[in-house]
Amino acid sequence: MKLAEHYTPIARSLERVERIFDDELAGEVDVVNNLCAHIRQYRGKMLRPALLLLTGEACGRVTREHHVLGSVVELVHMATLVHDDVLDEADLRRRCTTINRLHGNEAAVLLGDYLISHAFHLCSSLDSQYASRLIGSTTNTVCEGELMQVFHRGDYDLSEETYFEIISRKTASLVATCCILGSRFAGADPAVIAAAERYGMSVGVAFQIIDDVLDLQGTEQETGKTLGRDLDKEKLTLPIIHYLRTADRDVKAEALAVMNNGHQDRAERIARMVSQSDSVRYAYHKARHHVRVAVEALAVFPDGDAKDSLTAMAEFIIDRHE
Amino acid sequence: MKLAEHYTPIARSLERVERIFDDELAGEVDVVNNLCAHIRQYRGKMLRPALLLLTGEACGRVTREHHVLGSVVELVHMATLVHDDVLDEADLRRRCTTINRLHGNEAAVLLGDYLISHAFHLCSSLDSQYASRLIGSTTNTVCEGELMQVFHRGDYDLSEETYFEIISRKTASLVATCCILGSRFAGADPAVIAAAERYGMSVGVAFQIIDDVLDLQGTEQETGKTLGRDLDKEKLTLPIIHYLRTADRDVKAEALAVMNNGHQDRAERIARMVSQSDSVRYAYHKARHHVRVAVEALAVFPDGDAKDSLTAMAEFIIDRHE
Repeated sequence: MKLAEHYTPIARSLERVERIFDDELAGEVDVVNNLCAHIRQYRGKMLRPALLLLTGEACGRVTREHHVLGSVVELVHMATLVHDDVLDEADLRRRCTTINRLHGNEAAVLLGDYLISHAFHLCSSLDSQYASRLIGSTTNTVCEGELMQVFHRGDYDLSEETYFEIISRKTASLVATCCILGSRFAGADPAVIAAAERYGMSVGVAFQIIDDVLDLQGTEQETGKTLGRDLDKEKLTLPIIHYLRTADRDVKAEALAVMNNGHQDRAERIARMVSQSDSVRYAYHKARHHVRVAVEALAVFPDGDAKDSLTAMAEFIIDRHE
Repeated sequence: MKLAEHYTPIARSLERVERIFDDELAGEVDVVNNLCAHIRQYRGKMLRPALLLLTGEACGRVTREHHVLGSVVELVHMATLVHDDVLDEADLRRRCTTINRLHGNEAAVLLGDYLISHAFHLCSSLDSQYASRLIGSTTNTVCEGELMQVFHRGDYDLSEETYFEIISRKTASLVATCCILGSRFAGADPAVIAAAERYGMSVGVAFQIIDDVLDLQGTEQETGKTLGRDLDKEKLTLPIIHYLRTADRDVKAEALAVMNNGHQDRAERIARMVSQSDSVRYAYHKARHHVRVAVEALAVFPDGDAKDSLTAMAEFIIDRHE
């Protein structure tokens, strides 16, 4: 796996993050422990802890606080995955059957709650309230983004501006928080912390754009996820928004008719129409812009392996999928 | 409303709790603010903040921390209500249409997440981590109790012991935490805090027993909730557990046949069978025992209006419904 190569500067720290994560979830109730063992398989890329540790390493020294906070952000992320799978009625996640598919929506809703609860519980073991406050404010924002998305379902006039507000809140805010925490707990000064936040926001936005393109164009083999869900759930993503905005009136009318017809092959037909247009290229262009902003933000970071990894990870978002 | 009379010693503090609650939920996103305005109608009895403030008042002085923590526990409680309504597929809550009925399960899951996130965000505004840590540990326990309940659905051999473990975790643990926080932030000594915890646990257990009896026997008029859900969801509660344990073999077989037949009037038929037995009386007897334990725990509290209210509130649990 290519991404893991960039983790070299923080490989041992990531192991500590995993151990703290497992210890936090070791509880008294067997059925709950079994569910936690299952979702451990979702813990694939560990992207958020890796970014937190790499910004820490780049800005100074990785401390015990970084290890704890790495587990906290992964717990938060896991909670959102488990609830997203309920909302999306998804059957697959990282090639594993989802909790909702295995044990029903009730268990999945409660397991997500359990993970978010443990995230805050673990975070409150640190001496200062700073991280708890920032994580709380971030999860507020993540929920707002997700709720905006739900209330814009079926809104075929969704603007690019609103799309970017949604993905900034639901995805990029948590990535930015990882980079703020990583740099701040390494003792970085405010200008560097602000740059880390900018890096995280931009990486998060680029990542979500590509994730949305893959939902339209990828294969389940490639992504390990159920695909075509965005269109099935009437969620508009960047290539579709661009397509509807730029298509001739007749073509647009045809696309809307397909989206509204409710047929099983709807997502596939739209994917084919959009693929033959410039709209996927446009989405990549936008993602590439955000990657560039992210890499530029790193200019104030001291040179070294950790900074090189942060640069490479931002660029990897595009390379992986093109 | 009779319960409100016992709130006299803390009436002004409760108003401050409500103001902090509203301020915490005032966000930037309109659709989210509209949802929050709706669930404000659920904020009926404010039982948990009231117990937190009364134990504070009884043990010393109510401080700004008590007001903040009162809002925190109400936010936690609201989150569990919103997610419970998803799990129970309920249509009514405090005579209002539920969020899941109005806006679908997706919005309800996310709104619950938003409320729990705000609870932790608000809690982390306090100087010490103590409350965040205790609230986190309590919500871990609440989720474990709820998950146990889900995994025991359809388990017609559920023991009384497991039933009590479930309700202790899912309901009583949060009530106990309210009383711990109230007494501790008023500077009570460890013996008094331990008594406050015992009071809260016992009140919580008694409250849940009666709530379960009402789901079987109440009217929607009385409770403002969709009824008969426990049986529809194959959740066994104390009167049913007692009934199945004590009934003759033939009667038990008949009851199990009714529960398994899936007919619409299943809950009603079981309610009729159980009402003609001693099992509802048995549940009241158990609830009364826990109320007695709660009142006895208050012996170490200084005499005064707040202590009188705590006593009266424990007794009210039974009187309200018998």
